[in-house]
Parts: sequence; C-alpha cells; structure tokens
Amino acid sequence: MRTGRGPARPRLVGVSTSAEISGVRLPLRPGLEGLEPYGAPQLDVPVRLNVNENPHPPSDAVVADIADAVAKAARGLNRYPDRDFDELRAELAEYLRVESGVTVAGKQIWAANGSNEVMLHLLLAYGGPGRVVLSFPPTYSMYPEYARDTLTEWVTGRREEDFTLDAGHAVAQIAEHRPSVILLASPNNPTGTALSLETVDAICVAARDGGPAGPDGEPTAAVVVVDEAYGEFRREGTPSALTLLERHPHLAVARTMSKAFGMAGLRLGYLAGDPRIVNHLRVVRLPYHLSAVTQAAALAALRHRGELMTQVASLRAERDALVAWLRERGLRVADSDANFVLTGVFPDRHQVWNGLLERGVLVREVGPDGWLRVSVGTPQEMDAFKAALEEVAGK
Amino acid sequence: MRTGRGPARPRLVGVSTSAEISGVRLPLRPGLEGLEPYGAPQLDVPVRLNVNENPHPPSDAVVADIADAVAKAARGLNRYPDRDFDELRAELAEYLRVESGVTVAGKQIWAANGSNEVMLHLLLAYGGPGRVVLSFPPTYSMYPEYARDTLTEWVTGRREEDFTLDAGHAVAQIAEHRPSVILLASPNNPTGTALSLETVDAICVAARDGGPAGPDGEPTAAVVVVDEAYGEFRREGTPSALTLLERHPHLAVARTMSKAFGMAGLRLGYLAGDPRIVNHLRVVRLPYHLSAVTQAAALAALRHRGELMTQVASLRAERDALVAWLRERGLRVADSDANFVLTGVFPDRHQVWNGLLERGVLVREVGPDGWLRVSVGTPQEMDAFKAALEEVAGK
Repeated sequence: MRTGRGPARPRLVGVSTSAEISGVRLPLRPGLEGLEPYGAPQLDVPVRLNVNENPHPPSDAVVADIADAVAKAARGLNRYPDRDFDELRAELAEYLRVESGVTVAGKQIWAANGSNEVMLHLLLAYGGPGRVVLSFPPTYSMYPEYARDTLTEWVTGRREEDFTLDAGHAVAQIAEHRPSVILLASPNNPTGTALSLETVDAICVAARDGGPAGPDGEPTAAVVVVDEAYGEFRREGTPSALTLLERHPHLAVARTMSKAFGMAGLRLGYLAGDPRIVNHLRVVRLPYHLSAVTQAAALAALRHRGELMTQVASLRAERDALVAWLRERGLRVADSDANFVLTGVFPDRHQVWNGLLERGVLVREVGPDGWLRVSVGTPQEMDAFKAALEEVAGK
Repeated sequence: MRTGRGPARPRLVGVSTSAEISGVRLPLRPGLEGLEPYGAPQLDVPVRLNVNENPHPPSDAVVADIADAVAKAARGLNRYPDRDFDELRAELAEYLRVESGVTVAGKQIWAANGSNEVMLHLLLAYGGPGRVVLSFPPTYSMYPEYARDTLTEWVTGRREEDFTLDAGHAVAQIAEHRPSVILLASPNNPTGTALSLETVDAICVAARDGGPAGPDGEPTAAVVVVDEAYGEFRREGTPSALTLLERHPHLAVARTMSKAFGMAGLRLGYLAGDPRIVNHLRVVRLPYHLSAVTQAAALAALRHRGELMTQVASLRAERDALVAWLRERGLRVADSDANFVLTGVFPDRHQVWNGLLERGVLVREVGPDGWLRVSVGTPQEMDAFKAALEEVAGK
C-alpha cells in the first residue's frame, strides 16, 4: 500500500547550540556543547509507528469527562494545586491494585510530568557526582540523559544475544560498580524484553548492600528501578515487579499513563515504592510540579480505566500477530511484552526506514545496528506497515 | 473581624526523610539528609494571603474556553504533545509585546511547568559543580534549591537596608565570584522591590565577560536572569527588563502565568531571551515536558488576556492602599511593585502570624526577622486582614 503522501520535513530545524552570540560567550556547562535536544523526528505522516503511542484516541465519554473535570478545576486555577496530589496518588494506587493484584497505599505513590520526570527525581535524590547509575543496553535512550543532567556516571552492562538479561552478569556488575541506582526497563525499550521475577529478585538481593558507601563508610543499598512503562502489555504469565515491592524496600516500580492508558499527551508518569523513597523524591521535586489541570484530567481518565484497558487486550493480540507475521517472513523478532516489536536484521536499516517513510509509514531507527522498532497500531495501520515492508524489503 | 474558623492542620504531616528502612539504607545524596520538602503550609483557612495568589478566580467565559480547548486536545491525548510548543511560544511572545511594548519572536520564548522548571533548566544548562550562581537575599527561597539540585554553588551578595540593590556592590560581587548565572528577582520576592533598568544594565555590562573561564581559558558571560514573576504588578514608570533584551544576549527575563494571569494552578512559567539560550534549554529539558492539556489551557487563557489583565489594575490599587494603611499605623513597608507587601518590624513575628491565623487570615513568615509578607487579596480579604492585625498587633 502506498498512501501517496510523502514524508514531511521536521517541524523544528536543528539549530546550532554553539555558545557564542555576537561576541558574547554563554557559559554552557561542559559536556553539553554541540548536543542536540533528544527526540524522534516529529513528522506528519499518515501512519506513525515510531514512538510507541497507543493508536486509539480517547472515546467521547472519556473526552467529555476530562473536559468536565478540567472545567471544575479551572474555577480554582488562580490557586496553587494540591502540592501532594493526595487524591491522585490514592487513585493510582487503586488502579495498580486492580491491574496487578498488588496492594499499595497512596503514600507509596509518586507522580510527575511523565515518567521522565519521575526518573529525574530518582537521580536527583540518589545520583550525583561520584555516583554510578547502572543499566543494560540496548535500553531506553533517555536513561543516559538523566545521568548526564544529574552528573551521575553512566555505566552499562550487557544483554544477551536475544536481549535477555543474565542475572549473574547483573549481580557481578553491581559488585563491580556499586551503583546508587540501577535502571531496568521491563518490558525493555526498544527490545520488548521483560525481566523474569527471579532476575529482578536476584538483582534486588545483590543491591541490598550493593550501593555506594554511606556517611559512615558502611555500604548502602542501590535503588533498583524497574521501569514498567509498557507493563500492561506483558504477555499472560509475565508478572509485574510490583509483586516484589513488599520484599524489597529499595525497589521502585515506575509506570506511566502514556501507553496502555493512551494518554501520552497528558504527561503523567508515576512509581510505587517504599514511603521513604517517596519522601526523598518530595525533597527534590519542584513545588507544585503537577498542575491542577493534570491532576483533574488524570483522575478523570482513571475513572474510565475499564474502557481504556480493553484496548490493551486487542493491542496485545495485534502485537502477537505482528511478531508471527514478521517471523514467517524470515525476520528476527525479539520476544515482545510491549506494544512494539524490534525486528531485523536489515543489511541497510536506514534504507528500509526511508522506504517505509516514503510510503507514509514512520518507524524508529533505534537499538542495535540493523534493527528497527515498530509500534503496534490499529489493524489498518498494521496492514499499511506490512504492505510497505513487503515493497521495501521484499518481505 | 474574627471569622470563627480556626486554623486547620497541615494536610501532610512531616515525615522523616531518614534513609534507613528496616535494615536497608537508601543511598540518599549527601546534603539531602534530613531536609524537608519546600513549601508553605497548606492550611484550609478563609483568607489565604500567604502564597501571592491572585484572589480572582477565572470568569465563566475563561473557564468555558479552557474546557473547550482541553476537550479538543483530549481527542488526541493518545499522541505525544508538540515537543516544541510552537503555537504557545508565539502567543506568549505576542502577549509580551502587548504587555511591555517589546517585540520578541516565538523562538526567543521558552516555557515549562512553572517558572521553577524554567529556572531548573537554566541551572542545568549553565550551572553545575565548580560553578557559582549569584543572588541577593532576602530573595525567593526556591533559588538556593535550584542551586542545590544542580550542584551549583550558591553565593549571595546583600541588599541595602531598604531592600534595594546597589549596582556597585552587585558588579563587585560579579568580579569576585565569576558566577555563571545571576538570579535577580524584580520585583523581588519577598520584598516587592523592583530593580531600576540602570541597575540591570550595569549588571549585564559587568556580566558580559564576568562569567567562568571557557574551555579556552578566556572568560565567558554570566547569564543574567531577571525573574519578573510579578512583573505585571509594577508601578507606573517601572519598566520591564524585557526592554534590555536586544542590548544583552546573555540576559533572560522570566515570567509566569501564575500571578497576574491568575493561573497558579496551571503551572506555566516562561522566559524570553536570545534564541541560543532557548536552544541550550532545549538540550536539558525532558522531552514532551509540557503536556497537550497544559498547552491548550494556556492558549485559551492567553486569548482572554484583556479580561484577566484588568484585574491587575485593581490589585495594584489595592496594594498601594494597603501600603498606605500599614504606614499610617507606623509600620515599615518595603516599596512594592508586586501583589504583596513586606511589613514589619514586629518584635515577635510568629506571635503576630499565629494571631492572624487564629482569626482565619494566613500570611507568610518569610524574609528578615520581624517581617511578614502579606499577599494582596480582594477588598473583603484586605478588610479581614486589617481587622485581624488591629486585634493582634494593636495597629
């Protein structure tokens, strides 16, 4: 299928970040010189399968409830919002209970403008100069940016050839680097790979006194962050790391409303963890970081969780069908517990990416060389992707 | 006047931030141990004059337009927001043009979730270990927190006895400390004191090569940030530092929709500066930091700027009347260009603060010993404050 609409140009042309302006030299922090802002190209194409968005827009009922809730909140917008967003925390806890069967209290919940900001809070509290954040690439490409922004050393272990994580390797890395934070995406982005509970548990055990030395010279824990941004898409039988919270007070499990909830535009990420962790994050957050409008809209969306979550089942089925279709054509596909798949190996992935784009289908060039990441869209979008790929790669 | 309603308890009881949980010691970053989260007590009292909010809630027309705009945005909430918020930047630029007569382009505008986050971006880009941020207390109490979170050294000069800033002293401080960022609130919080353009200009001239050494050892500029969060309340004849932007490419002027716009709950702060500064901030921002809902609501509020700004004139008049009333009673009052006044000197300010609270009036214990900060409310709220103060302090 050719949609007939070619790729548009990026909307914001890259601008030099050189620090000199008409003789005045700005004191840009060392290490930032010449960097470009993070982000996938924002292209206006018919089939966008590049940033793992949920392809289903909110229903009329959800839209109406959000508008009502925001209208109510707007009547008090001259006042600062609830700095501790107690109602939202309670409802997020209730959602986790229903979704995962794990009971957490509102005081165990932290939220921010996207899980990006949750992660920044974690690294502001536990990272910093002289400290190490450990992760296992290929993984989410924002992780090194959190480290950079908080001046935390970014140290990486490895994944196996099938993108799984070897628990023994991870434990050895902890012993070697004594990280203060361990970032584990599960399912992992861009590979889709979930961690087994046994692996997370082994890492938590090793992390219990595997962190940097405390003020008295005795070892502290490494905070283990399991980033379950795509957690709701996990396959039957894959448990959430939430089930380990009770056992490990240095574990935090991050979630987001961007993906399964289909609320990427709302920017609401959160985590569950020990109340002490939450209180540490409260110290480093900027006051009133969650607007009254965000709180109201998130609460409205949470009231519709039943409806929003039914889409998850169809996206999972669509994902499994896509994996099967790609494998039938001889492509490698990483096992995926997410709403995207990583597939390859293409001898020239940029040529494939570009060919798809010319056919109106935008996917993501990310992960190891030769692989492409494809978000799971609607059945129509999947048809468009398949037709385009057959043309471009002869698959 | 006694409202009959006593002070309520804070809604979130202070929780220890001790890093130890049941034998597991969290690796809290040195310097954060034992700190409490920033923020004034959130007390539910009839007359809240403690956080410089605009006492006027949005009109029905504003509320309806925000709800409509958010409903439209909600239809696409499954997608990420415009990462560069181009439309909002253009409208903020247009607002500044109307408000101050200074023409700035959209590419000169940066925005974030409150001016807190704008400031954090500035210090992430230009601060860091081994660097200095210079400011002049008594000033906004979040400034040292931005420094702490970005590991920038917090260095302070002084203000004169009447809270004005001596340009010669400021210039000498720049030469001595070679800051990479200079934070100047104008009007200053909590004193209400505006800076003259001459002072800002002299500081900018000194800052032009007054920053830290660059990679080649030659001096860079210090970035001068004039925080005009309360800028719209300035008295007749007090100009905005926006008028100096063209002359100084290392100057940034921050504003917010929280105060004059009466949108504290929306969390929308912004700055105007050279496009190079904006591009540096784009490197350190988290992607998609401004939600689609925030962008839509802010655009809707900006469409009603005429209506929202008429309140500013009445608040200024109310402020001037309050200053006169306090002075008639023999109290000292700092000249105020803001929507609050700092008044004293009370031999026991906590006793006065508490007496006011017992009468249902919440003000802020902030600034030098013996002074209290009072936000300008509605005429009814001002009457309540005056009656309570007469009872408590015999004024």
